[in-house]
Amino acid sequence: MPDRNRQILLVETPKGKLGPEHFRLVEAPLSKPQEGEVLARVRYISLDAANRAWMQGATYRSAVEAGSVMAGGALAEIVESKSPALRPGDLVFADTGWQEYAVLPAKRAAKLPRLAPLTHLLSVYGIAGLTAYFGLLEVGQPKPGETVVVSAAAGSVGSFVGQIAKIKGCRAVGIAGGAAKCDWLVNELGFDAAVDYKAGDLAKSLKAAAPNGIDVFFDNVGGEALEAALARLARGARVVLCGAVSQYNATTAPRGPANYMQLLVARASMTGFVIFDYAHRYTEGVAQLAKWLGSGELRSREQIIRGDVSDFPEILLALFRGENTGKLVLALDG
Amino acid sequence: MPDRNRQILLVETPKGKLGPEHFRLVEAPLSKPQEGEVLARVRYISLDAANRAWMQGATYRSAVEAGSVMAGGALAEIVESKSPALRPGDLVFADTGWQEYAVLPAKRAAKLPRLAPLTHLLSVYGIAGLTAYFGLLEVGQPKPGETVVVSAAAGSVGSFVGQIAKIKGCRAVGIAGGAAKCDWLVNELGFDAAVDYKAGDLAKSLKAAAPNGIDVFFDNVGGEALEAALARLARGARVVLCGAVSQYNATTAPRGPANYMQLLVARASMTGFVIFDYAHRYTEGVAQLAKWLGSGELRSREQIIRGDVSDFPEILLALFRGENTGKLVLALDG
Repeated sequence: MPDRNRQILLVETPKGKLGPEHFRLVEAPLSKPQEGEVLARVRYISLDAANRAWMQGATYRSAVEAGSVMAGGALAEIVESKSPALRPGDLVFADTGWQEYAVLPAKRAAKLPRLAPLTHLLSVYGIAGLTAYFGLLEVGQPKPGETVVVSAAAGSVGSFVGQIAKIKGCRAVGIAGGAAKCDWLVNELGFDAAVDYKAGDLAKSLKAAAPNGIDVFFDNVGGEALEAALARLARGARVVLCGAVSQYNATTAPRGPANYMQLLVARASMTGFVIFDYAHRYTEGVAQLAKWLGSGELRSREQIIRGDVSDFPEILLALFRGENTGKLVLALDG
Repeated sequence: MPDRNRQILLVETPKGKLGPEHFRLVEAPLSKPQEGEVLARVRYISLDAANRAWMQGATYRSAVEAGSVMAGGALAEIVESKSPALRPGDLVFADTGWQEYAVLPAKRAAKLPRLAPLTHLLSVYGIAGLTAYFGLLEVGQPKPGETVVVSAAAGSVGSFVGQIAKIKGCRAVGIAGGAAKCDWLVNELGFDAAVDYKAGDLAKSLKAAAPNGIDVFFDNVGGEALEAALARLARGARVVLCGAVSQYNATTAPRGPANYMQLLVARASMTGFVIFDYAHRYTEGVAQLAKWLGSGELRSREQIIRGDVSDFPEILLALFRGENTGKLVLALDG
């Protein structure tokens, strides 16, 4: 049993662009689990745009405070348990934070089945897949024949949103950065069209890709993408607010969509949602996602970086540079 | 029968603050109605914040073009008819524009009953009353015990929204400019609280007035009021987008709500609506509003300025200076 634990601390709340200077690697003594707690070894940790949002202040969860271990969801293996609910060797999902080991209450760890590949549990069967599933279907309410547009389409959530839209008989359009990602969306995942926001004139490209207007816009990005989509809403459109990654690193005041009154012109709605509200329906979501995965209608891409806790900051920064495609995961060789 | 018609033209599309220089009084020959048309004498014309929005570009209607007669809804009396649907002496509501007489297709004029006072037809039984009625009840879906907040609360739409909220068993809070308007809302109209945005610290005052958060925010204003309300949304709140009067005169780029991601935190929705979509239900709305007016539960304040077509620009500018309370109407002595 180890008695030391390597952790990544958030040194200070970033103002503006996130950089390596906001993190520090420390080594701390490993505490023992108390009654009702478990000791878990972190195996795979999920890197998400939301990690950045958590640093900024209270959102749907309390903020990650400066000086504490950076928060993050992970697959972990129980090493020691002081709870009847979990046993050594059990696989769990929990917010372990960015560290090699975590001591946490057993009730905060969700036991998972062992399946191959394990990383599916962090992508298609994890928050990303469930967010796409419930966000698109419950909040977006797409109907066959409608046009669904998703931003950050080559990211983990976005890639599922477009594929589920196709399964539901919609026209799926993705907004992504770069020709390679756009090719992947159309040629590998079956999107009807993809718009490269780095190629310039997003508004014009979006008009060409969604000639009948946008019925559902699933937004992970905010900023320019949101404004371009609002300008193209079809009558009665639904905007699903999932994230605003373009704003998390803003050095100026965050920017709201200047043309939000397009919601009035289009008689449209914009609705925020948080996946945790659907926790009582995760089983249903996972079962459906598994069926689509099995039939080949849905594909899950995971980009797994094998490394060490010290690699976390750099990998999160790569995500913000838009370098990943699909779900970004750091595997600790442990 | 007159053969000359005095009209107010929109000289140019205003960029930024609206001023008298954007209008010009002209005298033009009065044309004769053709088959299917009527000639109507304008009696009472409605002055609305939306008038300004129409100048800016296409919204839910096409823009008022520079060089054309300024658009506006009015009560008018038929002088001559080339349509079997209307007869001389009939009272109608129509977009006559800012002029003494209008020639228009009979099908664009809605015949109205003669009731006293006639100005009720432009306020409580007109667009203002119906906008409050359907916007609050259909889009806002307030439930008894919930908190309803409305901006521009002392304006025509806002004053009805708060009163209807009270009738429906809600806590009604108005945002208005100045102590006199706030007093009127609370002491005359029965709002539970009013917040004076001119008194400073809107966020703090709103927190005090809506201690349990805001369940329905009916927004006529945008800008600071919208941001203050978004920051105080209760879980599952509904934001009804009716107007954005704070933005119509903006000299800089229009501003979207910087904290729109509060919709996500609160799992809230923001929905735009246009009253004309409820045209098939106006009769139902008017009947209900008449019942409340009759029982004394609802009051309609009309501020009627008696004047001349040349007075239009100045009166619209007064509306933007926030000088009116209730429905602002120009009566042409004709």
